[in-house]
Amino acid sequence: MNQTHIDFFTNLLGKDNAYFDKAHKIAYCYDATKKRYEPDGVLFPRDENDVSKILKYCNENGVIVIPRGAGSGFTGGALAANGGVVLAFEKHMNKILEIDLQNLVAVVQPGCINMDLQNAVEKLGLFYPPDPASQNYSTIGGNVSENAGGMRAAKYGITKDYVMALRAVLANGDIIKAGKRTIKDVAGYNIAGILIASEGTLGVITEITLKLIAKPKFKKTAMGVFKSVDDAMNAVYKTMSAGVTPVAMEFLDNLSIKAVEEKYHKGLPVDAGAILIADVDGNLELSLEQDLEIIQKVFKENGALDFVIAKDEEESANLWFARRNCSQAITCYGSLKLNEDITVPRSKLPKLLDKIKEISAKFGVTTPCFGHTGDGNVHTNVMVDKENEDEVKRGYEAIEEIFKATVELGGTLSGEHGIGLSKAPYMHLAFSDEEMALFANIKKAFDPNNILNPFKMGLK
Amino acid sequence: MNQTHIDFFTNLLGKDNAYFDKAHKIAYCYDATKKRYEPDGVLFPRDENDVSKILKYCNENGVIVIPRGAGSGFTGGALAANGGVVLAFEKHMNKILEIDLQNLVAVVQPGCINMDLQNAVEKLGLFYPPDPASQNYSTIGGNVSENAGGMRAAKYGITKDYVMALRAVLANGDIIKAGKRTIKDVAGYNIAGILIASEGTLGVITEITLKLIAKPKFKKTAMGVFKSVDDAMNAVYKTMSAGVTPVAMEFLDNLSIKAVEEKYHKGLPVDAGAILIADVDGNLELSLEQDLEIIQKVFKENGALDFVIAKDEEESANLWFARRNCSQAITCYGSLKLNEDITVPRSKLPKLLDKIKEISAKFGVTTPCFGHTGDGNVHTNVMVDKENEDEVKRGYEAIEEIFKATVELGGTLSGEHGIGLSKAPYMHLAFSDEEMALFANIKKAFDPNNILNPFKMGLK
Repeated sequence: MNQTHIDFFTNLLGKDNAYFDKAHKIAYCYDATKKRYEPDGVLFPRDENDVSKILKYCNENGVIVIPRGAGSGFTGGALAANGGVVLAFEKHMNKILEIDLQNLVAVVQPGCINMDLQNAVEKLGLFYPPDPASQNYSTIGGNVSENAGGMRAAKYGITKDYVMALRAVLANGDIIKAGKRTIKDVAGYNIAGILIASEGTLGVITEITLKLIAKPKFKKTAMGVFKSVDDAMNAVYKTMSAGVTPVAMEFLDNLSIKAVEEKYHKGLPVDAGAILIADVDGNLELSLEQDLEIIQKVFKENGALDFVIAKDEEESANLWFARRNCSQAITCYGSLKLNEDITVPRSKLPKLLDKIKEISAKFGVTTPCFGHTGDGNVHTNVMVDKENEDEVKRGYEAIEEIFKATVELGGTLSGEHGIGLSKAPYMHLAFSDEEMALFANIKKAFDPNNILNPFKMGLK
Repeated sequence: MNQTHIDFFTNLLGKDNAYFDKAHKIAYCYDATKKRYEPDGVLFPRDENDVSKILKYCNENGVIVIPRGAGSGFTGGALAANGGVVLAFEKHMNKILEIDLQNLVAVVQPGCINMDLQNAVEKLGLFYPPDPASQNYSTIGGNVSENAGGMRAAKYGITKDYVMALRAVLANGDIIKAGKRTIKDVAGYNIAGILIASEGTLGVITEITLKLIAKPKFKKTAMGVFKSVDDAMNAVYKTMSAGVTPVAMEFLDNLSIKAVEEKYHKGLPVDAGAILIADVDGNLELSLEQDLEIIQKVFKENGALDFVIAKDEEESANLWFARRNCSQAITCYGSLKLNEDITVPRSKLPKLLDKIKEISAKFGVTTPCFGHTGDGNVHTNVMVDKENEDEVKRGYEAIEEIFKATVELGGTLSGEHGIGLSKAPYMHLAFSDEEMALFANIKKAFDPNNILNPFKMGLK
């Protein structure tokens, strides 16, 4: 970063919004991966015009730009792996601009925190369903850029299902709008659709218009205990095809159950092969009861040893405790967690879990699994000792085979974490040369000088 | 079309699948616009490999390719306005390939007729919601290419909300897959998302994987009669913000009501300013009753003169009769119908309808309106005498002002018909030069030689 660049950014934004000191470089070098890359500077744009001027300058001068949310990503999407300036939105561009009660729409800036939006709309009787595990700190801009999912995806879908319109700045500084505050809009190419999940490689999102829905009045939680993973996985997809769509249908395998029990002593069934935790919701208690009856029937038909319905919110929180705490608890199995968010069609879950077991045995690694089975998304955690070089190597070999198995079963490398840096080496397992060439052409159409978060997602 | 091209296509596909005679050119020269353009040939690919070989050849030899569904489009998307070969899928690539009961997914070829799919899945207790008015003959390939909507969009969304994955052939003949049979998939750019609604300009879709849902067990219909359009439009968006999401909330204005009554004598309230017809559905009769109670309350609060709930399917069909037949009936107002599918945020409907009335008076034209107000989509029909040159001219001037008003209200030129040829002259009203330049860059990234349905959507 030469002095001319530093002067430009400082003049444009003021000293309080453009930082090139070591402390800021360290503060913005991380995300939820173990990787660290210091950027050359950290910029806090005050508005869309700042973003436009920054991008125009960077495009003309070959400065790399890394748009960044909360830095909570699991795949390095926000890391400045090739230097450049980080654009951070948490200081100025972090507001809820509007909640439109007439059209059930919210308009937010990219730095708005997911939970702040959820809280604001729920006070008004409305509901913004996407709830990534990072919801307390991750930003809507980051959620859109990675197309974040969450627990409630089984019924309510993911971030992309709620984005109605975007404003964005292109690499050359052009400000564009995409989409409308309408359910239907078929004029022009679906630019919003391709900006979502593009991990900051195609444009910088500056405003997001989101669909809201009415908040369901009632919610209930149930838990099923299964002898085997296989039984549980069969119960998942059979519940859905029986016509019930639970809000969430979450899963813990035996390793995850044991880890939670060991740490928290909650009286979990440590001999069970798996547990499933399901939430149902709606505006009529009767419809919830009907749903729970069907779930119980399907669970029993698929070998459930036990089935519990929470009587109140406290009991519900208790049932959810195991799921919410297993990510932490399973660190007992290894000091390095290689966690992947592979996703398969729900009916392939039994085969996928078999395959993971087989591959883990082959490479001598321990792989607790849990996650969002209601939408086919399994958090697969290969746990290794980070000091044991050979085990780490075997861990990565296992991961590669798990990816291969996932793709063979019609699944995807990533259900919700994105590709970023971490999964870039595996893109060839899922995409043909022709498909990768198309991605490269699209990247070039948006960003011919390759300044926007370059070399992510396996792009060259 | 020179003899070399004709020989290539004939050798590749056989004489039965490659036609260059006048009869075929005439048979494939039309769509639902009044425009006619004869293609240079009509090809019936037998499979994806045929499509790939055709496109590779056309790309290398500068032959234009027009993918075509049923030719039921309203904006000329399937017209060979610049010559070239039409790719028609109704002969071979028209099948339902799979209905996957475990994952609630259907896989179809592009030439599959929408209603054939609906019927097939409903027999199995499942439901494919997108129901464009052309559903009896339009194809899923066409529906995806135009991102078709329909009556049920207010609750169930539109075609894009059901497309999970596509296979497609790019201009250079490359065969690609995009998306997965999973709810979550965030690996790579959202290619399926940009192919949807791209009107055959970016690739030729060869296989479509669609999400299905469980068929709701109950449905009920209600009708509200309003003194004024304004009252009715207020009732629409207030119903939604009261937490009810009707399957459909359809609207007829006074001109439409009178036209239907004059033709069919059904006892409709010819003095009413507007009627609203609403369907609600669900798996519990109690929930439908609750929804109808709220709708009735909102309608009454907004000046409804009358509110009727259909007792059975026959009464429901009666209430729907007016809506289903108004497109035909309003031809009494003029021999040429300039019909547009503008869409605004629901809360802007009262203002939009006011504006349409004002503009119609200014230009001395009659403009009956009806349509899918539940999602903000109004079918606006400027009716003129096609022999009266001056009136036709005034009609088009009115259309342009209506488009301007729509965009000013935050709406879109097209809710479901697409841009094609007909709306291309108006793209500048809705999109900036920067946005049009981005569209052109994307087109070039997919189709550098501009062979795929060129010069549609306002592209140069």
